[in-house]
Amino acid sequence: MLTSRRKIFIEWGDCDPAAIVFYPRYFEWFDACTAGLFALAGYPKQELLKTQGIVIPIVDTRSRFLIPSRFGDEVTVETTITRFGRSSFDVHHRMLKGADLAVECFETRVWTAMEPAGPERLKSRTIPEAVKQRLSRDDA
Amino acid sequence: MLTSRRKIFIEWGDCDPAAIVFYPRYFEWFDACTAGLFALAGYPKQELLKTQGIVIPIVDTRSRFLIPSRFGDEVTVETTITRFGRSSFDVHHRMLKGADLAVECFETRVWTAMEPAGPERLKSRTIPEAVKQRLSRDDA
Amino acid sequence: MLTSRRKIFIEWGDCDPAAIVFYPRYFEWFDACTAGLFALAGYPKQELLKTQGIVIPIVDTRSRFLIPSRFGDEVTVETTITRFGRSSFDVHHRMLKGADLAVECFETRVWTAMEPAGPERLKSRTIPEAVKQRLSRDDA
Amino acid sequence: MLTSRRKIFIEWGDCDPAAIVFYPRYFEWFDACTAGLFALAGYPKQELLKTQGIVIPIVDTRSRFLIPSRFGDEVTVETTITRFGRSSFDVHHRMLKGADLAVECFETRVWTAMEPAGPERLKSRTIPEAVKQRLSRDDA
Repeated sequence: MLTSRRKIFIEWGDCDPAAIVFYPRYFEWFDACTAGLFALAGYPKQELLKTQGIVIPIVDTRSRFLIPSRFGDEVTVETTITRFGRSSFDVHHRMLKGADLAVECFETRVWTAMEPAGPERLKSRTIPEAVKQRLSRDDA
Repeated sequence: MLTSRRKIFIEWGDCDPAAIVFYPRYFEWFDACTAGLFALAGYPKQELLKTQGIVIPIVDTRSRFLIPSRFGDEVTVETTITRFGRSSFDVHHRMLKGADLAVECFETRVWTAMEPAGPERLKSRTIPEAVKQRLSRDDA
Repeated sequence: MLTSRRKIFIEWGDCDPAAIVFYPRYFEWFDACTAGLFALAGYPKQELLKTQGIVIPIVDTRSRFLIPSRFGDEVTVETTITRFGRSSFDVHHRMLKGADLAVECFETRVWTAMEPAGPERLKSRTIPEAVKQRLSRDDA
Repeated sequence: MLTSRRKIFIEWGDCDPAAIVFYPRYFEWFDACTAGLFALAGYPKQELLKTQGIVIPIVDTRSRFLIPSRFGDEVTVETTITRFGRSSFDVHHRMLKGADLAVECFETRVWTAMEPAGPERLKSRTIPEAVKQRLSRDDA
Protein backbone atom coordinates (compact mmCIF):
# COMPACT_ATOMS: atom_id res chain seq x y z
CA MET A 1 0.00 0.00 0.00
CA LEU A 2 1.05 3.56 -0.63
CA THR A 3 2.45 5.11 2.57
CA SER A 4 2.92 8.80 3.28
CA ARG A 5 5.38 10.11 5.84
CA ARG A 6 5.07 13.49 7.54
CA LYS A 7 7.35 15.13 10.08
CA ILE A 8 5.63 17.13 12.82
CA PHE A 9 7.39 19.58 15.10
CA ILE A 10 5.60 19.84 18.45
CA GLU A 11 4.91 23.46 19.33
CA TRP A 12 4.43 25.10 22.73
CA GLY A 13 0.76 25.73 21.91
CA ASP A 14 0.17 22.04 21.19
CA CYS A 15 0.94 21.22 24.83
CA ASP A 16 -1.10 21.43 28.02
CA PRO A 17 -0.19 22.32 31.63
CA ALA A 18 1.45 18.89 32.00
CA ALA A 19 3.77 20.12 29.19
CA ILE A 20 2.78 17.20 26.96
CA VAL A 21 0.68 17.25 23.78
CA PHE A 22 -3.01 17.91 24.46
CA TYR A 23 -4.41 14.79 22.79
CA PRO A 24 -7.04 16.40 20.47
CA ARG A 25 -4.06 17.90 18.60
CA TYR A 26 -3.08 14.36 17.54
CA PHE A 27 -6.39 14.05 15.71
CA GLU A 28 -5.81 17.36 13.91
CA TRP A 29 -2.49 15.99 12.68
CA PHE A 30 -3.93 12.60 11.73
CA ASP A 31 -6.67 14.32 9.71
CA ALA A 32 -3.97 16.28 7.88
CA CYS A 33 -1.97 13.08 7.36
CA THR A 34 -4.92 11.34 5.71
CA ALA A 35 -5.27 14.37 3.45
CA GLY A 36 -1.53 14.14 2.78
CA LEU A 37 -1.82 10.50 1.74
CA PHE A 38 -4.53 11.36 -0.77
CA ALA A 39 -2.46 14.29 -2.06
CA LEU A 40 0.52 11.97 -2.50
CA ALA A 41 -1.73 9.65 -4.54
CA GLY A 42 -2.71 12.54 -6.80
CA TYR A 43 -6.01 13.41 -5.13
CA PRO A 44 -5.50 16.55 -3.03
CA LYS A 45 -8.56 17.27 -0.91
CA GLN A 46 -9.25 20.64 -2.54
CA GLU A 47 -9.31 18.98 -6.01
CA LEU A 48 -11.51 16.10 -4.84
CA LEU A 49 -14.07 18.63 -3.62
CA LYS A 50 -13.83 20.98 -6.59
CA THR A 51 -13.82 18.45 -9.42
CA GLN A 52 -15.80 15.55 -7.96
CA GLY A 53 -17.72 17.12 -5.06
CA ILE A 54 -16.20 14.49 -2.77
CA VAL A 55 -15.34 14.77 0.94
CA ILE A 56 -14.10 11.94 3.20
CA PRO A 57 -15.64 12.39 6.66
CA ILE A 58 -14.60 10.14 9.51
CA VAL A 59 -17.14 7.80 11.09
CA ASP A 60 -14.99 5.93 13.61
CA THR A 61 -11.55 6.46 15.11
CA ARG A 62 -9.49 4.83 17.80
CA SER A 63 -6.18 5.99 19.14
CA ARG A 64 -3.67 4.60 21.63
CA PHE A 65 -1.28 7.02 23.31
CA LEU A 66 1.88 5.12 24.25
CA ILE A 67 4.62 7.74 24.71
CA PRO A 68 3.91 11.41 25.42
CA SER A 69 5.58 14.12 23.34
CA ARG A 70 6.71 17.57 24.46
CA PHE A 71 7.25 20.92 22.76
CA GLY A 72 10.52 20.87 20.87
CA ASP A 73 10.10 17.18 19.95
CA GLU A 74 9.92 16.09 16.35
CA VAL A 75 7.87 13.05 15.39
CA THR A 76 7.05 11.28 12.14
CA VAL A 77 3.64 9.96 11.11
CA GLU A 78 3.37 7.06 8.66
CA THR A 79 -0.06 6.77 7.06
CA THR A 80 -1.51 4.04 4.90
CA ILE A 81 -4.87 2.56 3.95
CA THR A 82 -5.51 -0.92 5.34
CA ARG A 83 -8.91 -1.76 3.84
CA PHE A 84 -11.18 -0.62 1.01
CA GLY A 85 -14.90 -1.37 1.11
CA ARG A 86 -17.45 -0.23 -1.44
CA SER A 87 -17.72 3.29 -0.02
CA SER A 88 -15.79 3.10 3.26
CA PHE A 89 -12.09 2.61 3.93
CA ASP A 90 -9.74 2.22 6.89
CA VAL A 91 -6.66 4.34 7.55
CA HIS A 92 -3.79 3.49 9.87
CA HIS A 93 -1.44 6.13 11.35
CA ARG A 94 1.76 5.32 13.23
CA MET A 95 3.42 8.25 15.00
CA LEU A 96 7.07 7.46 15.62
CA LYS A 97 9.44 9.12 18.06
CA GLY A 98 12.79 7.96 16.78
CA ALA A 99 12.20 4.22 16.31
CA ASP A 100 9.50 3.99 18.97
CA LEU A 101 5.76 3.92 18.34
CA ALA A 102 4.41 6.89 20.31
CA VAL A 103 0.79 7.06 19.12
CA GLU A 104 -1.23 4.75 16.93
CA CYS A 105 -4.52 5.62 15.28
CA PHE A 106 -7.14 3.75 13.28
CA GLU A 107 -9.82 5.52 11.24
CA THR A 108 -12.81 4.54 9.18
CA ARG A 109 -13.90 7.11 6.59
CA VAL A 110 -16.57 7.24 3.91
CA TRP A 111 -16.31 8.42 0.29
CA THR A 112 -19.08 11.00 0.35
CA ALA A 113 -20.75 13.39 -2.09
CA MET A 114 -21.56 16.94 -1.06
CA GLU A 115 -24.78 17.77 -2.89
CA PRO A 116 -24.93 20.97 -4.99
CA ALA A 117 -27.76 22.16 -2.77
CA GLY A 118 -25.21 22.69 -0.08
CA PRO A 119 -23.51 20.89 2.72
CA GLU A 120 -26.79 19.86 4.30
CA ARG A 121 -26.91 16.46 2.68
CA LEU A 122 -24.07 13.97 2.64
CA LYS A 123 -24.42 10.72 0.64
CA SER A 124 -21.95 7.86 0.46
CA ARG A 125 -20.64 6.99 -3.01
CA THR A 126 -18.76 4.04 -4.50
CA ILE A 127 -15.01 4.64 -4.31
CA PRO A 128 -13.69 4.80 -7.90
CA GLU A 129 -11.43 1.87 -8.89
CA ALA A 130 -8.74 4.31 -10.04
CA VAL A 131 -8.55 5.78 -6.54
CA LYS A 132 -8.31 2.35 -4.93
CA GLN A 133 -5.61 1.23 -7.33
CA ARG A 134 -3.54 4.39 -6.91
CA LEU A 135 -3.64 4.14 -3.11
CA SER A 136 -2.84 0.42 -3.22
CA ARG A 137 0.42 0.83 -5.12
CA ASP A 138 3.59 0.53 -3.12
CA ASP A 139 5.59 3.25 -4.80
CA ALA A 140 4.88 6.92 -4.29
CA MET B 1 -22.68 5.75 38.59
CA LEU B 2 -22.45 9.51 38.87
CA THR B 3 -23.31 11.12 35.52
CA SER B 4 -22.55 14.68 34.46
CA ARG B 5 -24.47 16.49 31.73
CA ARG B 6 -23.09 19.41 29.74
CA LYS B 7 -24.74 21.46 27.02
CA ILE B 8 -22.51 22.50 24.14
CA PHE B 9 -23.38 25.16 21.60
CA ILE B 10 -21.65 24.50 18.27
CA GLU B 11 -19.81 27.60 17.07
CA TRP B 12 -18.86 28.66 13.53
CA GLY B 13 -15.19 28.10 14.36
CA ASP B 14 -15.84 24.50 15.43
CA CYS B 15 -16.90 23.65 11.87
CA ASP B 16 -14.96 22.87 8.71
CA PRO B 17 -15.58 23.69 5.02
CA ALA B 18 -18.28 20.97 4.93
CA ALA B 19 -20.01 23.16 7.59
CA ILE B 20 -20.00 20.30 10.09
CA VAL B 21 -17.96 19.94 13.30
CA PHE B 22 -14.27 19.28 12.62
CA TYR B 23 -13.97 16.04 14.60
CA PRO B 24 -10.91 16.88 16.79
CA ARG B 25 -13.21 19.46 18.46
CA TYR B 26 -15.29 16.57 19.86
CA PHE B 27 -12.23 15.35 21.74
CA GLU B 28 -11.64 18.82 23.20
CA TRP B 29 -15.21 18.73 24.52
CA PHE B 30 -14.95 15.17 25.81
CA ASP B 31 -11.77 16.06 27.69
CA ALA B 32 -13.63 18.98 29.29
CA CYS B 33 -16.58 16.69 30.07
CA THR B 34 -14.34 14.23 31.92
CA ALA B 35 -12.97 17.18 33.90
CA GLY B 36 -16.57 18.27 34.53
CA LEU B 37 -17.48 14.85 35.91
CA PHE B 38 -14.59 14.99 38.38
CA ALA B 39 -15.54 18.56 39.35
CA LEU B 40 -19.12 17.40 39.95
CA ALA B 41 -17.74 14.69 42.23
CA GLY B 42 -15.82 17.28 44.22
CA TYR B 43 -12.44 16.82 42.53
CA PRO B 44 -11.91 19.76 40.14
CA LYS B 45 -8.83 19.20 37.99
CA GLN B 46 -7.02 22.30 39.30
CA GLU B 47 -7.45 21.05 42.91
CA LEU B 48 -6.35 17.50 42.04
CA LEU B 49 -3.14 18.91 40.63
CA LYS B 50 -2.53 21.48 43.36
CA THR B 51 -3.33 19.38 46.43
CA GLN B 52 -2.44 15.87 45.27
CA GLY B 53 -0.17 16.43 42.27
CA ILE B 54 -2.50 14.25 40.22
CA VAL B 55 -3.30 14.44 36.50
CA ILE B 56 -5.44 11.97 34.51
CA PRO B 57 -3.91 11.57 31.03
CA ILE B 58 -5.70 9.52 28.39
CA VAL B 59 -4.08 6.33 27.09
CA ASP B 60 -6.78 5.06 24.73
CA THR B 61 -9.86 6.56 23.13
CA ARG B 62 -12.38 5.45 20.57
CA SER B 63 -15.15 7.53 19.08
CA ARG B 64 -18.02 6.81 16.70
CA PHE B 65 -19.51 9.73 14.75
CA LEU B 66 -23.13 8.91 13.95
CA ILE B 67 -24.86 12.23 13.21
CA PRO B 68 -22.97 15.38 12.15
CA SER B 69 -23.62 18.68 13.93
CA ARG B 70 -23.55 22.17 12.47
CA PHE B 71 -22.92 25.67 13.86
CA GLY B 72 -25.97 26.89 15.69
CA ASP B 73 -26.79 23.37 16.95
CA GLU B 74 -26.93 22.63 20.65
CA VAL B 75 -26.00 19.18 21.92
CA THR B 76 -25.75 17.54 25.34
CA VAL B 77 -22.97 15.27 26.55
CA GLU B 78 -23.64 12.69 29.26
CA THR B 79 -20.47 11.43 30.94
CA THR B 80 -19.98 8.58 33.36
CA ILE B 81 -17.27 6.18 34.49
CA THR B 82 -17.85 2.58 33.44
CA ARG B 83 -14.88 0.81 35.06
CA PHE B 84 -12.34 1.37 37.81
CA GLY B 85 -9.08 -0.59 37.85
CA ARG B 86 -6.25 -0.12 40.32
CA SER B 87 -4.87 2.97 38.59
CA SER B 88 -6.79 3.12 35.31
CA PHE B 89 -10.46 3.81 34.62
CA ASP B 90 -12.84 3.95 31.66
CA VAL B 91 -15.05 6.91 30.78
CA HIS B 92 -18.07 6.85 28.50
CA HIS B 93 -19.45 9.96 26.74
CA ARG B 94 -22.75 10.08 24.90
CA MET B 95 -23.39 13.22 22.83
CA LEU B 96 -27.10 13.64 22.23
CA LYS B 97 -28.83 15.75 19.60
CA GLY B 98 -32.34 15.89 20.94
CA ALA B 99 -33.04 12.24 21.77
CA ASP B 100 -30.60 10.86 19.20
CA LEU B 101 -27.10 9.63 19.88
CA ALA B 102 -24.87 11.78 17.66
CA VAL B 103 -21.38 10.85 18.89
CA GLU B 104 -20.21 8.20 21.32
CA CYS B 105 -16.78 8.09 22.92
CA PHE B 106 -14.89 5.64 25.13
CA GLU B 107 -11.75 6.62 27.04
CA THR B 108 -9.21 4.90 29.24
CA ARG B 109 -7.31 7.20 31.58
CA VAL B 110 -4.70 6.69 34.27
CA TRP B 111 -4.47 8.23 37.77
CA THR B 112 -1.01 9.73 37.49
CA ALA B 113 1.41 11.64 39.71
CA MET B 114 3.34 14.60 38.35
CA GLU B 115 6.69 14.48 40.14
CA PRO B 116 7.96 17.60 41.92
CA ALA B 117 10.98 17.53 39.62
CA GLY B 118 8.68 18.68 36.87
CA PRO B 119 6.39 17.29 34.26
CA GLU B 120 9.11 15.12 32.80
CA ARG B 121 8.13 12.03 34.76
CA LEU B 122 4.64 10.62 35.00
CA LYS B 123 3.94 7.66 37.29
CA SER B 124 0.65 5.81 37.74
CA ARG B 125 -0.81 5.74 41.24
CA THR B 126 -3.54 3.75 42.98
CA ILE B 127 -6.89 5.54 42.67
CA PRO B 128 -8.03 6.46 46.22
CA GLU B 129 -11.11 4.55 47.45
CA ALA B 130 -12.82 7.85 48.30
CA VAL B 131 -12.57 8.96 44.70
CA LYS B 132 -13.95 5.66 43.40
CA GLN B 133 -16.85 5.75 45.85
CA ARG B 134 -17.76 9.35 45.10
CA LEU B 135 -17.81 8.73 41.35
CA SER B 136 -19.79 5.50 41.79
CA ARG B 137 -22.73 7.15 43.60
CA ASP B 138 -25.84 7.73 41.57
CA ASP B 139 -26.80 11.09 42.95
CA ALA B 140 -25.01 14.27 42.03
CA MET C 1 -25.53 49.88 22.40
CA LEU C 2 -26.72 46.33 22.85
CA THR C 3 -24.23 44.38 24.99
CA SER C 4 -23.97 40.60 25.28
CA ARG C 5 -22.41 38.86 28.26
CA ARG C 6 -20.94 35.36 28.14
CA LYS C 7 -19.36 33.31 30.90
CA ILE C 8 -16.39 31.20 29.92
CA PHE C 9 -14.93 28.42 32.03
CA ILE C 10 -11.23 27.95 31.31
CA GLU C 11 -10.45 24.32 30.57
CA TRP C 12 -7.20 22.38 30.98
CA GLY C 13 -6.89 22.10 27.20
CA ASP C 14 -7.11 25.89 26.78
CA CYS C 15 -3.85 26.27 28.70
CA ASP C 16 -0.21 25.90 27.71
CA PRO C 17 2.87 24.59 29.58
CA ALA C 18 2.96 27.83 31.60
CA ALA C 19 -0.51 26.73 32.82
CA ILE C 20 -2.11 29.91 31.48
CA VAL C 21 -4.47 30.33 28.53
CA PHE C 22 -2.73 29.89 25.18
CA TYR C 23 -3.66 33.25 23.65
CA PRO C 24 -5.15 32.09 20.30
CA ARG C 25 -7.93 30.57 22.41
CA TYR C 26 -9.02 34.11 23.37
CA PHE C 27 -9.69 34.85 19.72
CA GLU C 28 -11.82 31.69 19.38
CA TRP C 29 -13.91 32.95 22.30
CA PHE C 30 -14.11 36.51 20.97
CA ASP C 31 -15.30 35.19 17.61
CA ALA C 32 -18.03 33.23 19.40
CA CYS C 33 -18.90 36.32 21.47
CA THR C 34 -19.42 38.42 18.34
CA ALA C 35 -21.69 35.66 17.02
CA GLY C 36 -23.46 35.68 20.38
CA LEU C 37 -24.10 39.42 20.16
CA PHE C 38 -25.70 39.02 16.75
CA ALA C 39 -27.77 36.08 18.02
CA LEU C 40 -28.94 38.23 20.94
CA ALA C 41 -30.01 40.87 18.43
CA GLY C 42 -32.06 38.29 16.53
CA TYR C 43 -29.51 37.53 13.82
CA PRO C 44 -27.91 34.17 14.62
CA LYS C 45 -24.99 33.46 12.28
CA GLN C 46 -26.56 30.33 10.81
CA GLU C 47 -29.70 32.31 9.86
CA LEU C 48 -27.71 35.22 8.43
CA LEU C 49 -25.93 32.78 6.13
CA LYS C 50 -28.99 30.71 5.22
CA THR C 51 -31.51 33.49 4.62
CA GLN C 52 -29.29 36.39 3.48
CA GLY C 53 -26.06 34.68 2.39
CA ILE C 54 -24.17 36.95 4.77
CA VAL C 55 -20.95 36.25 6.69
CA ILE C 56 -19.00 38.75 8.81
CA PRO C 57 -15.26 38.05 8.38
CA ILE C 58 -12.73 39.95 10.45
CA VAL C 59 -10.28 42.29 8.73
CA ASP C 60 -8.43 43.74 11.73
CA THR C 61 -8.11 42.79 15.39
CA ARG C 62 -6.07 44.01 18.31
CA SER C 63 -5.91 42.47 21.75
CA ARG C 64 -4.24 43.43 25.00
CA PHE C 65 -3.55 40.68 27.56
CA LEU C 66 -3.50 42.25 31.02
CA ILE C 67 -4.11 39.40 33.49
CA PRO C 68 -3.48 35.74 32.66
CA SER C 69 -6.17 33.13 33.35
CA ARG C 70 -5.70 29.53 34.41
CA PHE C 71 -7.75 26.31 34.07
CA GLY C 72 -10.55 26.32 36.59
CA ASP C 73 -11.01 30.10 36.29
CA GLU C 74 -14.30 31.56 35.14
CA VAL C 75 -14.33 34.81 33.22
CA THR C 76 -17.04 36.96 31.62
CA VAL C 77 -16.87 38.62 28.22
CA GLU C 78 -18.89 41.77 27.50
CA THR C 79 -19.32 42.45 23.80
CA THR C 80 -20.72 45.49 22.05
CA ILE C 81 -20.47 47.30 18.73
CA THR C 82 -18.70 50.66 18.88
CA ARG C 83 -19.01 51.88 15.28
CA PHE C 84 -21.07 51.21 12.18
CA GLY C 85 -19.77 52.22 8.76
CA ARG C 86 -21.48 51.52 5.45
CA SER C 87 -20.31 47.91 5.28
CA SER C 88 -17.78 47.63 8.11
CA PHE C 89 -18.25 47.78 11.87
CA ASP C 90 -16.14 47.70 15.03
CA VAL C 91 -16.63 45.31 17.94
CA HIS C 92 -15.25 45.71 21.45
CA HIS C 93 -14.77 42.78 23.86
CA ARG C 94 -13.93 43.16 27.54
CA MET C 95 -12.98 39.95 29.35
CA LEU C 96 -13.48 40.41 33.09
CA LYS C 97 -12.01 38.34 35.92
CA GLY C 98 -14.18 39.39 38.80
CA ALA C 99 -14.18 43.18 38.48
CA ASP C 100 -10.80 43.34 36.74
CA LEU C 101 -10.23 43.74 33.03
CA ALA C 102 -8.16 40.70 32.04
CA VAL C 103 -8.18 40.91 28.24
CA GLU C 104 -9.45 43.58 25.89
CA CYS C 105 -10.05 43.11 22.19
CA PHE C 106 -11.00 45.38 19.27
CA GLU C 107 -12.23 43.99 15.96
CA THR C 108 -13.20 45.39 12.59
CA ARG C 109 -15.49 43.18 10.53
CA VAL C 110 -17.22 43.51 7.17
CA TRP C 111 -20.81 42.67 6.20
CA THR C 112 -20.07 40.30 3.34
CA ALA C 113 -22.04 38.30 0.78
CA MET C 114 -21.06 34.73 -0.04
CA GLU C 115 -21.86 34.35 -3.74
CA PRO C 116 -24.03 31.40 -4.86
CA ALA C 117 -21.11 30.21 -6.97
CA GLY C 118 -19.37 29.21 -3.78
CA PRO C 119 -17.14 30.62 -1.13
CA GLU C 120 -14.55 31.71 -3.68
CA ARG C 121 -15.85 35.24 -3.94
CA LEU C 122 -16.60 37.49 -1.00
CA LYS C 123 -18.12 40.93 -1.63
CA SER C 124 -18.86 43.61 0.96
CA ARG C 125 -22.48 44.73 1.23
CA THR C 126 -24.27 47.67 2.86
CA ILE C 127 -25.30 46.78 6.40
CA PRO C 128 -29.13 46.91 6.57
CA GLU C 129 -30.56 49.73 8.68
CA ALA C 130 -32.66 47.24 10.65
CA VAL C 131 -29.50 45.41 11.74
CA LYS C 132 -27.81 48.65 12.79
CA GLN C 133 -30.84 49.79 14.74
CA ARG C 134 -31.31 46.48 16.51
CA LEU C 135 -27.66 46.34 17.60
CA SER C 136 -27.75 49.99 18.70
CA ARG C 137 -30.59 49.53 21.17
CA ASP C 138 -29.66 49.41 24.81
CA ASP C 139 -32.06 46.73 25.93
CA ALA C 140 -31.66 43.10 25.04
CA MET D 1 17.66 41.94 12.04
CA LEU D 2 17.59 38.17 11.96
CA THR D 3 14.56 36.99 9.97
CA SER D 4 13.04 33.51 10.03
CA ARG D 5 10.94 32.12 7.18
CA ARG D 6 8.41 29.34 7.61
CA LYS D 7 6.20 27.68 5.01
CA ILE D 8 2.70 26.78 6.15
CA PHE D 9 0.36 24.45 4.28
CA ILE D 10 -3.28 25.32 4.98
CA GLU D 11 -5.21 22.23 6.05
CA TRP D 12 -8.92 21.46 5.78
CA GLY D 13 -9.25 21.66 9.55
CA ASP D 14 -7.78 25.17 9.62
CA CYS D 15 -10.76 26.45 7.62
CA ASP D 16 -14.31 27.40 8.59
CA PRO D 17 -17.67 27.02 6.80
CA ALA D 18 -16.71 29.90 4.49
CA ALA D 19 -13.82 27.59 3.43
CA ILE D 20 -11.24 30.19 4.48
CA VAL D 21 -8.82 30.07 7.42
CA PHE D 22 -10.55 30.54 10.78
CA TYR D 23 -8.53 33.53 12.00
CA PRO D 24 -7.46 32.25 15.47
CA ARG D 25 -5.36 29.70 13.55
CA TYR D 26 -3.18 32.58 12.28
CA PHE D 27 -2.25 33.37 15.87
CA GLU D 28 -1.29 29.73 16.53
CA TRP D 29 1.05 29.95 13.54
CA PHE D 30 2.45 33.34 14.53
CA ASP D 31 3.20 32.03 18.03
CA ALA D 32 5.07 29.11 16.46
CA CYS D 33 6.90 31.53 14.13
CA THR D 34 8.13 33.62 17.06
CA ALA D 35 9.37 30.40 18.67
CA GLY D 36 10.99 29.51 15.35
CA LEU D 37 12.84 32.83 15.23
CA PHE D 38 14.26 32.24 18.71
CA ALA D 39 15.22 28.68 17.74
CA LEU D 40 16.99 30.02 14.65
CA ALA D 41 18.92 32.38 16.92
CA GLY D 42 20.03 29.46 19.09
CA TYR D 43 17.41 29.85 21.82
CA PRO D 44 14.77 27.15 21.30
CA LYS D 45 11.80 27.67 23.64
CA GLN D 46 12.27 24.34 25.42
CA GLU D 47 15.91 25.25 26.23
CA LEU D 48 15.02 28.77 27.37
CA LEU D 49 12.57 27.28 29.85
CA LYS D 50 14.76 24.40 30.99
CA THR D 51 18.08 26.23 31.38
CA GLN D 52 16.97 29.77 32.22
CA GLY D 53 13.37 29.35 33.40
CA ILE D 54 12.32 31.90 30.79
CA VAL D 55 9.02 32.13 28.88
CA ILE D 56 7.98 34.93 26.50
CA PRO D 57 4.25 35.58 26.94
CA ILE D 58 2.46 38.01 24.65
CA VAL D 59 0.95 41.20 26.11
CA ASP D 60 -0.36 42.89 22.97
CA THR D 61 -1.02 41.77 19.41
CA ARG D 62 -2.58 43.32 16.34
CA SER D 63 -3.31 41.60 13.08
CA ARG D 64 -4.61 42.76 9.70
CA PHE D 65 -6.21 40.18 7.42
CA LEU D 66 -5.79 41.34 3.83
CA ILE D 67 -6.21 38.24 1.63
CA PRO D 68 -8.01 35.08 2.78
CA SER D 69 -6.36 31.68 2.39
CA ARG D 70 -8.01 28.34 1.65
CA PHE D 71 -7.15 24.69 2.33
CA GLY D 72 -4.55 23.53 -0.14
CA ASP D 73 -2.84 26.95 -0.19
CA GLU D 74 0.77 27.33 0.88
CA VAL D 75 1.92 30.55 2.49
CA THR D 76 5.20 31.81 3.93
CA VAL D 77 5.64 33.75 7.16
CA GLU D 78 8.62 36.07 7.61
CA THR D 79 9.30 36.94 11.24
CA THR D 80 11.65 39.48 12.73
CA ILE D 81 12.07 41.56 15.87
CA THR D 82 11.52 45.29 15.36
CA ARG D 83 12.27 46.67 18.84
CA PHE D 84 14.04 45.63 22.03
CA GLY D 85 13.20 47.33 25.32
CA ARG D 86 14.61 46.41 28.71
CA SER D 87 12.31 43.42 29.19
CA SER D 88 9.80 43.75 26.34
CA PHE D 89 10.24 43.38 22.60
CA ASP D 90 8.18 43.72 19.43
CA VAL D 91 7.81 41.04 16.77
CA HIS D 92 6.59 41.55 13.22
CA HIS D 93 5.12 38.74 11.08
CA ARG D 94 4.40 39.04 7.36
CA MET D 95 2.41 36.17 5.84
CA LEU D 96 2.96 36.09 2.09
CA LYS D 97 0.86 34.39 -0.56
CA GLY D 98 3.21 34.37 -3.49
CA ALA D 99 4.47 37.96 -3.53
CA ASP D 100 1.36 39.42 -1.87
CA LEU D 101 1.02 40.33 1.78
CA ALA D 102 -1.93 38.23 3.01
CA VAL D 103 -1.79 38.78 6.79
CA GLU D 104 0.34 41.07 8.90
CA CYS D 105 0.81 40.77 12.65
CA PHE D 106 2.51 42.84 15.34
CA GLU D 107 3.26 41.45 18.80
CA THR D 108 4.68 42.76 22.03
CA ARG D 109 6.14 40.11 24.32
CA VAL D 110 7.92 40.15 27.67
CA TRP D 111 11.05 38.26 28.76
CA THR D 112 9.60 36.55 31.82
CA ALA D 113 10.81 34.24 34.59
CA MET D 114 8.72 31.30 35.72
CA GLU D 115 9.37 30.99 39.44
CA PRO D 116 10.44 27.59 40.87
CA ALA D 117 7.32 27.69 43.04
CA GLY D 118 5.34 26.98 39.93
CA PRO D 119 3.66 28.76 37.11
CA GLU D 120 1.62 30.92 39.46
CA ARG D 121 4.00 33.84 39.41
CA LEU D 122 5.43 35.45 36.33
CA LYS D 123 8.02 38.24 36.65
CA SER D 124 9.58 40.27 33.86
CA ARG D 125 13.38 40.10 33.55
CA THR D 126 16.01 42.10 31.67
CA ILE D 127 16.63 40.60 28.25
CA PRO D 128 20.28 39.44 28.15
CA GLU D 129 22.52 41.42 25.81
CA ALA D 130 23.65 38.19 24.12
CA VAL D 131 20.07 37.43 23.14
CA LYS D 132 19.51 40.94 21.77
CA GLN D 133 22.72 40.81 19.77
CA ARG D 134 22.04 37.40 18.32
CA LEU D 135 18.54 38.37 17.19
CA SER D 136 19.82 41.68 15.77
CA ARG D 137 22.30 40.07 13.38
CA ASP D 138 21.31 39.91 9.74
CA ASP D 139 22.69 36.50 8.96
CA ALA D 140 21.07 33.28 10.12
